[in-house]
Parts: sequence; C-alpha cells; structure tokens
Amino acid sequence: MAPSVAVENLNPKVLKCEYAVRGEIVIHAQRLQQQLQTQPGSLPFDEILYCNIGNPQSLGQQPVTFFREVLALCDHPSLLEKEETKSLFSADAISRAKRILSTIPGRATGAYSHSQGIKGLRDAIAAGIALRDGFPANADDIFVTDGASPGVHMMMQLLLRDEKDGILCPIPQYPLYSASIALHGGTLIPYYLDEKTGWGLEISELKKQLEDARSKGIDVRALVVINPGNPTGQVLAEDNQCDIVRFCKNEGLVLLADESVSKGYYGECGKRGGYMEITGFSASVREQVYKIASVNLCSNITGQILASLIMNPPKEGDESYAAYKAEKDGILQSLARRAKALEDAFNNLEGISCNKAEGAMYLFPQIHLPQKAIEAAKAAKKAPDAFYALRLLEATGIVVVPGSGFGQVPGTWHIRCTILPQEDKIPAVITRFKAFHEAFMAEYRD
Amino acid sequence: MAPSVAVENLNPKVLKCEYAVRGEIVIHAQRLQQQLQTQPGSLPFDEILYCNIGNPQSLGQQPVTFFREVLALCDHPSLLEKEETKSLFSADAISRAKRILSTIPGRATGAYSHSQGIKGLRDAIAAGIALRDGFPANADDIFVTDGASPGVHMMMQLLLRDEKDGILCPIPQYPLYSASIALHGGTLIPYYLDEKTGWGLEISELKKQLEDARSKGIDVRALVVINPGNPTGQVLAEDNQCDIVRFCKNEGLVLLADESVSKGYYGECGKRGGYMEITGFSASVREQVYKIASVNLCSNITGQILASLIMNPPKEGDESYAAYKAEKDGILQSLARRAKALEDAFNNLEGISCNKAEGAMYLFPQIHLPQKAIEAAKAAKKAPDAFYALRLLEATGIVVVPGSGFGQVPGTWHIRCTILPQEDKIPAVITRFKAFHEAFMAEYRD
Repeated sequence: MAPSVAVENLNPKVLKCEYAVRGEIVIHAQRLQQQLQTQPGSLPFDEILYCNIGNPQSLGQQPVTFFREVLALCDHPSLLEKEETKSLFSADAISRAKRILSTIPGRATGAYSHSQGIKGLRDAIAAGIALRDGFPANADDIFVTDGASPGVHMMMQLLLRDEKDGILCPIPQYPLYSASIALHGGTLIPYYLDEKTGWGLEISELKKQLEDARSKGIDVRALVVINPGNPTGQVLAEDNQCDIVRFCKNEGLVLLADESVSKGYYGECGKRGGYMEITGFSASVREQVYKIASVNLCSNITGQILASLIMNPPKEGDESYAAYKAEKDGILQSLARRAKALEDAFNNLEGISCNKAEGAMYLFPQIHLPQKAIEAAKAAKKAPDAFYALRLLEATGIVVVPGSGFGQVPGTWHIRCTILPQEDKIPAVITRFKAFHEAFMAEYRD
Repeated sequence: MAPSVAVENLNPKVLKCEYAVRGEIVIHAQRLQQQLQTQPGSLPFDEILYCNIGNPQSLGQQPVTFFREVLALCDHPSLLEKEETKSLFSADAISRAKRILSTIPGRATGAYSHSQGIKGLRDAIAAGIALRDGFPANADDIFVTDGASPGVHMMMQLLLRDEKDGILCPIPQYPLYSASIALHGGTLIPYYLDEKTGWGLEISELKKQLEDARSKGIDVRALVVINPGNPTGQVLAEDNQCDIVRFCKNEGLVLLADESVSKGYYGECGKRGGYMEITGFSASVREQVYKIASVNLCSNITGQILASLIMNPPKEGDESYAAYKAEKDGILQSLARRAKALEDAFNNLEGISCNKAEGAMYLFPQIHLPQKAIEAAKAAKKAPDAFYALRLLEATGIVVVPGSGFGQVPGTWHIRCTILPQEDKIPAVITRFKAFHEAFMAEYRD
C-alpha cells in the first residue's frame, strides 16, 4: 500500500508556501554549528553569526530589566507577599505587577483570558497607542496575539476566498505575507519599492499594480504596508503615510499596517506578545474576527502582559525610569552605530550598494554579481543571491538571507543582513565579510 | 460605494465555522456580569459561575508553586545572582532554572527559538514521555506549540485539500476540531460515542462511518481521538486504544491523538504551552510540517519552559517534592470529590442522566427535555439545549455549553458542565441548579 500521507497528497497550498528566513541556508548553518561542536577547528571560523533573523537576544542583547521584573512577579505572585522582594525588585515593578494582577479576574495569570486579551491590559495598550499617536484608541478594537504572525494569518483567513482575491504587498517583503497568502489560497499582487529613492513607496506604483490586477479580474482586498521596512529598513514619511491611507479609502482596500511593534529595541521576540488594532469594520465583520480568535481561546498571558508593558514603560519620576532610559538609549545608540558601520562597510566594497537602515534592524544591500557568478549559480541550481549567501556562510560563518526570499526587481540581487551582532564583534564581521567578498569577486570577475 | 469588507464577501469557510464554547451564551454571561457590577442586586444571583470552559485558575485554583518559581527565575535570570533569592525560592527550582537557562542558546529567554522549540526543552519533554509511557520518544519528533489549537490547525492545514478530504471525529467532540476542519475546507466525518456504555468508542462504528464516507467519494485522511473525552469525560481502556491504533494502521489513517496534556491538574491554560509528537511521517512530509511551523517562527518561550516542567515535575528526594505532591494530590482529590458530587446531583434530578468523569474536568449530562420545552425553544428559535442553558444562566448565573455545540445523537440533548468551581461553592451550585431544573420541569412538564 502507498503511504497514506505523502508529499503528493498534502494540501497543495502548503507545498506552494515558501519561507526563506528559516530555509536551506539556516538549516545548513545549524549543521555547521554542530560540526563546530563535535570537530572544533574543522572550519575556517569558530562560530556561526546569525544575521539572518531579527533576534537581538540570541546575539547577546540583554532584556530591559523593568519588563522582566514585572513578568517574574506576575508569574509568581506570592513573591509580592515576601519582605525580601522589596530588596530584589524595584518599587515601581512591584506596584505595576500589583496593578496588572488586579486587572486579571481572580489574579489568575494561568487562566485563559478573554479571546481578545485581558481587558485591563488592552486598556493599557490603547492608552499607550493614544499617548504615542495623539489619537484615541479603544480597548475593544485591540486583539492581543502571540506575536505578529497569528494576526496576519487571521486577516488573510478572513479576506481570502480563492485565488481571485488579491493582496497588494511590497516587494521586497517579509515572507510571512507571501507565505500566509499562499497558505490561504489567495494571490499576492506585488508593488515595487524604489531602491534608488531609499526604498520609497510611490502611490503611482500602487495605482498601476492595482489597476493591472483588476484588469485581470482579481478582487484586490487589502494593501500591506511594512513600516519600518522589512527587509529594507526604511521609514515612511508622514505625508506618504497619509497618502497611503487616502489611497486605501478611495479604492476600498483594507490597510494592513505592520508597524513591527514586536520588533522594538527591547527584542522580546520569543515572548510572542503582539497586538492588532482593528478599525473601520462593521460590527458583523468584527464578530467574525472575534470568532476566529476564540477558536484559539486566547494568546499567551506572559506575552499579553509584556505587550502592555512595552506600550507603557516607566515614566519620569518612577523609580526605574533612569535605569530604563539608560538601557533603552544604550541599545538604540549602539544599534545606530552598528547600522552605520555595516552600511559604510557594504558601500565601500566593489559592486555593493546599500541604503540606510532608518528604523529597522535590517540592511538590504544590493550585490551587483558578475555574470560568471550568475552562471556558476545556475550550474549549482541556486538563485545567484542564494549561491552568494551559501558561499558567504561556508567561508565566514555569517548567515544572511538571500534577497530572492523576499522578492526583488528581476535581475537585481540582494542579501538581508541584520545589524544585531554585539558591537565588539562588528569589526570582525566586517573584516570577514570584506575578505570573503573580495575573494568572491576575484574568483568570478567577468 | 458598498463597504469593501462585509460579511457577504468574507471567506465562506470563516462564516461556516462555529465555536460554541465562547459563543452566544458566554457573551450573554459577560453582559450579565457587567450588569452585576453596575447594578448590584439587579439579578437573582450575585456572581457568574463559569462552568463552560476548562479554566481552573479562573475559578480560584492556585498554580503549582514549583512551576511558577522556575518560570519567574527564567523570566528574570539576574535573580539567580542574588543572595536573597535563596530564601525566596526552593533550591531545586533554582537548580532547575539554571539547567534550563544552560540549554537555551545565550540563556536568552526572550529570543526566538528553533521553530520546533528549544532543543534542550524538547529533550526534557521526550524524556518525560518515555518515562510515562515506557516507550522511547525523540526530541526531533516534538513540536512545542502555543497550546493544542495551533497543533490541530497545522495538521488540518497539512492534510485537507478540499471538501472531498474527510477527518473522522468523535461526536460529541470538542469544537476546535469541527471549527478547524471548517476553516480549512474539509469534511467532518462523525463517529458516535456510545453514551450507554459510558461514551465507549466502538471499532465497528468507526468502520461503518469510514466505509460510508468512502462510498460517498470522501478521501478519509485521519481519525481524531480525544482521550480523556471532551466534552464527555471518559477514559479509553488500553485494549481499546490498541485496537484504534491497529485500525488506523490497517486503513491508512493518520491518528490524531489529543491527549489533553494542556488540560492537566495544574490548569496552566493561559500560558499556552503544549506539544505535538509526530511519528510515522516520511522525511519529506516532516519537512513540510517544519516549514509551516517556521512561518510562525516559534511558540512562546514561557509556554515551552512550562511544557518541559509539566513533563518533568519534582521527583522524590528533591526539596520541592513534598510540597509539589501535596499540591498535586490536593487538586486531584478535590476534583474527584467535586466530580462525584455534581455527577450524583445530576443523576438525582428528574430527566437527567450523567456518566462519570473518569479523567477530565467535564460532565456531559443528558437532559431529557419535555416536548413542551422543545416547542418553546423552537418558538424562541434556539436549539432546545441552548434554550435550557440560557434559562439556566438567567436564573442562576451558571454558564454551561449546550450539547449542540459539540454534536450529539439527534433528538438527544446535553449540557457540558465543568467540575471546576471551588469546593466550597459546589453545594451552592447544586442547590441553585436543582431549584432551576425543578422549576423548569414544572413549567414545561408534558
């Protein structure tokens, strides 16, 4: 009997879905890491440097103390009754934990919550949004989620009926979108960001792609905006953002604004906290969103608490404020220095041009590959940028993601490289990268 | 212009999906709870008792101390360097936290992990499974998830191509399965549990429903077994389990065994920790599972740590063992007393019969509704058991889920009621339920 489950009889949407951020190159990197452990000295480098994924704490960034103090107290509330706790935790972490517990029915941090998240935490998130944006936000519009991915999947599930439904996505784009659209059976309608103007988003390009899709009979349901850009790192100007909102309103598109809260300076990726704010839907559509959320019961409470903390960090006058501000400024200033050092290094190399990382932890340099390298890649059955990234990994231990995983203007080749290795390692990263790139160009120069 | 997003143009699979556990009755209960706050004394009861959902900590159950000690230390690892910590935490919680942190690359509890979960934690989970079952388990087969729901969705997404693909599910069933099958566009093939034999699972019934589905051209991909039963509370005999495995092997069905680890006595529902063990799939199918998991990056680290703790609680000789055992035994013995008290109370009422809760926190009594009540329900456009549950809520504040939310033999009516109200409240629950039921029967007696 043939096996009852084989690749041939799986859901074809699953087979179609691609996700390069954790694809072939990362799996190869994990193999090399094991080799370094079992046979030290057997490779031309002594550690793997994961620049493929925006995962600051995996590369040594320390969590913000205040956030972790509050999480620990909420996880083990009986600490709040002990005298020693006062010397171990800051006073405002203690009072914040008490306040959070008082908003949770039964102070139960191990109970399922409301499917949109604990009401008191959503109130805090809404207040944080209002303070940041100067525009009111409502807790009833907030859905707290296990990071960004479930929110994206939920909206795709809601909007996509079949392959005649389309979603406008930036190219290059973070492949969660292309993966989710493939999994839910819709069609990705690309719009290109303009590399020459620092990955600018032109309304004329949106219009052109929208009309082109409509002329092919696609019902375009939504526009995805990723700001700050991923993998491209740019920040949209406020005027540009207003134009995008107006465009969506005029064209009847849902605006999916991925503002990457989960990718802030604090880098708490593994806690899987995030939120989605929904506005402009009718009550009956909202009920459907709530129903899908309720099938999964609720998101994890630790992530919910963390999302509320991130949106309401210590304020001036709080005991923790000085320490919090020093930690935050330290991280942000160091990230800025690292971004600049790597950007300059890329721009100083033959055949590489790199835009600024204005607000994200990514650089997306273009690699002008010689024809000979492109042919060598073809012979190896790899995309040219994947070929380059694999050679980079094997020579240096540096892991990056080929631009073909995000989409790019045909005939151009990029890599996405995070700026996250700790600052004392950046000079070595640059030296190793430079040596590799020069050798690669020497080998393949036309 | 018509609104661009309306119920009429949403994904019809979303509209088809139903999820009664958080449906109409719960929303009504939340409204009544608000009314109790704003107008105390305006209802015939002074609190809402949520017996609709297996959520022990929301009803006052305290978390296991050891688990929470370890979570707090992992959330805020710098505690491990402080002298005061030794007097606040047990020695084995401290050593366990140290051991866990040593298995996490960079000791980073805020970093994304491997998409299957942190390897060291999966090793611990596999060791726990092997110890429990006397059968080896492999960390590479474990996928740590944000609770059970994402695991179920992942398998449905993998297996279901269209409505010609079917999944055999018990009736009554926990509606996560029917909801997930609807969302992924497959067909639920029901097999009935036998209420007369304590919700027995008969292989002959499986065979009959499988053949019937196949004769209609359905490609039956998998069999769902929920053990202990949800909503039905029974535990399958070991012989019966062996027969089920053999049946799946012979018929080429994937066996989806929902063993409800996330629903253990510790009741840590809101932490969203769980795992899925996959065996018998080819490497190429496994790659597809990994790919879907990787699109969501990883499950929350707190839940991952908790899953490893639950599968490896303190052992004899550990400092925490006595306290841990006392907490665990206290919870389990109290649950058993509450289950028996409620079961007896149900069986003592006119027109109600109730099987034992052998291993779950649910009772699923059958309510033999008088014809007049059924007609009143019809007039109110409700399923008869939903009508009964709504009247129960309005009279007593007790929230239960109507059997029609889980499926039941046509013409029979049930409610699912958890055994989770704290023990001192059980007599009042019974008194209030009895008074309501007797009045209801008096009102509608044929």
